[in-house]
Amino acid sequence: MNFNYYMPSRLFFGKGEIEKLGTEKLPGKKALLVISAGGSMKKYGYLDKVTDLLKKNDTDYVLFDKILPNPIKSHVMEGAAVAKTQGCDFVIGLGGGSSIDSAKAIAVMATNEGDYWDYIGGGSGKGLPVPNKPLPIIAITTTAGTGTEADPWMVVTKEETGEKIGGGFDGTFPYFSIIDPDLMMSIPAHLTAYQGFDALFHSTEGYINKTANFMSDLFALASIELIGKYLPRAVRDGSDAEARAMVALANTLAGMVESTSGCTSEHSLEHALSGYHPKLPHGAGLIMISLEYNKLFADKVCPERFVAMAKALGKTDAVHPQDFVTALAELQKACGVDNLKMSDYGIKADEMQEIARHAKDTMGGLFEVDRYQLSHEEIVSILEKSYR
Amino acid sequence: MNFNYYMPSRLFFGKGEIEKLGTEKLPGKKALLVISAGGSMKKYGYLDKVTDLLKKNDTDYVLFDKILPNPIKSHVMEGAAVAKTQGCDFVIGLGGGSSIDSAKAIAVMATNEGDYWDYIGGGSGKGLPVPNKPLPIIAITTTAGTGTEADPWMVVTKEETGEKIGGGFDGTFPYFSIIDPDLMMSIPAHLTAYQGFDALFHSTEGYINKTANFMSDLFALASIELIGKYLPRAVRDGSDAEARAMVALANTLAGMVESTSGCTSEHSLEHALSGYHPKLPHGAGLIMISLEYNKLFADKVCPERFVAMAKALGKTDAVHPQDFVTALAELQKACGVDNLKMSDYGIKADEMQEIARHAKDTMGGLFEVDRYQLSHEEIVSILEKSYR
Repeated sequence: MNFNYYMPSRLFFGKGEIEKLGTEKLPGKKALLVISAGGSMKKYGYLDKVTDLLKKNDTDYVLFDKILPNPIKSHVMEGAAVAKTQGCDFVIGLGGGSSIDSAKAIAVMATNEGDYWDYIGGGSGKGLPVPNKPLPIIAITTTAGTGTEADPWMVVTKEETGEKIGGGFDGTFPYFSIIDPDLMMSIPAHLTAYQGFDALFHSTEGYINKTANFMSDLFALASIELIGKYLPRAVRDGSDAEARAMVALANTLAGMVESTSGCTSEHSLEHALSGYHPKLPHGAGLIMISLEYNKLFADKVCPERFVAMAKALGKTDAVHPQDFVTALAELQKACGVDNLKMSDYGIKADEMQEIARHAKDTMGGLFEVDRYQLSHEEIVSILEKSYR
Repeated sequence: MNFNYYMPSRLFFGKGEIEKLGTEKLPGKKALLVISAGGSMKKYGYLDKVTDLLKKNDTDYVLFDKILPNPIKSHVMEGAAVAKTQGCDFVIGLGGGSSIDSAKAIAVMATNEGDYWDYIGGGSGKGLPVPNKPLPIIAITTTAGTGTEADPWMVVTKEETGEKIGGGFDGTFPYFSIIDPDLMMSIPAHLTAYQGFDALFHSTEGYINKTANFMSDLFALASIELIGKYLPRAVRDGSDAEARAMVALANTLAGMVESTSGCTSEHSLEHALSGYHPKLPHGAGLIMISLEYNKLFADKVCPERFVAMAKALGKTDAVHPQDFVTALAELQKACGVDNLKMSDYGIKADEMQEIARHAKDTMGGLFEVDRYQLSHEEIVSILEKSYR
């Protein structure tokens, strides 16, 4: 039951907490402000809000607004070059996981030489240690899915090879994070669901992970319970402020799970899918494979943990490990995401051998923390049974 | 439901984790090693263990072995002077709360001018901000009571006036903390109980505090449950390794409660008692007043929280707020501390008016986070009814 706990990011959680950006001591005088290319930060007024608060706090900024939903390495390199030439001394990621993860990666490359992939372990990454401390990072979340505000992780795709690999270390924990559900009210229903399930799987994978411990269990079960209770409400009615806040909280807790335990091979499988098919949202990919993935694991290992997860999801009379799979299917139905199809995203039925190999090649590390070792055939089988 | 979460200390928790002192990167090259005057660190071999590990980690140290059970300001000033003249660049607190709290206070005064009381808010303290960053602090706990390994707080008594006041800020969070239950196996039964109840009250006070929030509630209920389940076992049989580990964990969780919520006036009352009567162990003082204190509060505010605490303590059929007081009395009996008497520590029945005034004068801040405002008469009444 030994554990190592470390989550040094300061979290400002709750309605209206965005105002802290105008009053808290910031870690620099000139920010690189990283947002997505999609335009929603402008459209919903979040960018104006943030730049007004920076002005109030006597802080300069340079905007970098190129990030894609599945962020790519060339934008990391470009953002870092801008930070260097413009003399930015900290980085703000405003948006969803893609913008915040990119902000973290840019913070690393703004103070270090070479290519971002030099510092990535797995795939064609060189796995070198990062010599210099990254710039300080501020995370301002406008989605509830990745938990990146409370963990050191960043996921970026090397576009030439389709490798979508996570990285991170002590230096990529945010200096502080603002999780203000007011900034999440305009997320469309389907994305609310995808992101909420991503958060859910961070918690469930952290809970069945070999590295699970008392602290990660505490965060995971609390997070699973909140998702089960509030995600359907947030999907049904995006203006339900309480549901939005509770899903946001569940997501931050899931980030703390990722800081104290971690993901399992379920995430490797999905990264292989959306690495090859960048239009597939990460959360949607996870939803597609989750029933078959958990069905297999529930039969093999830690039955009591699957029962506990089923109970946390709201199935209080759960007794069998497979009750979790039932609860998960019900939650998918309640959130309107029980009919997602890989074929809708251009994925072909005959790709599964390749995707299974790719998952192990690029994010093999996550298989090592599984309590059961999947064979290549079992991975292919999970993917094939999930295919529609 | 807004909250600000910040607990940047790295925690190494579990059996054998003391070895990390020999392998982890330390925050300096020469430690001031702060231990109690009592001799137990030498007697049980913990001091030798720690100095061997420092040697293994190529790190020098200077021993400062003067700390009293209720640590005093003159030792803080003396320790800081030693750290300065000997060129120590970090401080290790090895022992119980008194040694670790002193290590924190010494770390502050090793880099700042003036008197420690200049930086203390309340009583005759000047409440000045601390201008310079303290030396980094490593906490190695050998008791399970204060939670100081996971919070920024330090409690020191100004011996001239009997003021026992807590202080602390971001800079006094430990750089890292080692919580190794192997170092707690030799605590005598009565101290195991006093310390365990101190941890319990950190959690219960944090839970009924005005500033309680989702995160502190999570830690508090988990901690209360562990204490209820394992403290009687650890008291009954000090060699019960599982019980020791679980009580240690409960205490660390209670420290996280103190970092995210905080103590209430119960602690002010006790500090006034043991500030005037330094031979009274803090935990024993808390036990003495706890039944009357909680009886009053359970009648006044947040009934559902008292029921939840009763359930966490093991009284699963609890429905009334006063069930918590019953559960607390039962736990005190199970731990053999249901018959503690103030008179055994030289406290006189006619001191209560003075002690009540002293509690408000020196630690008035904790009354402000109470959900119910105690009158002077009510404070006196709690103390008088608790007197035996």
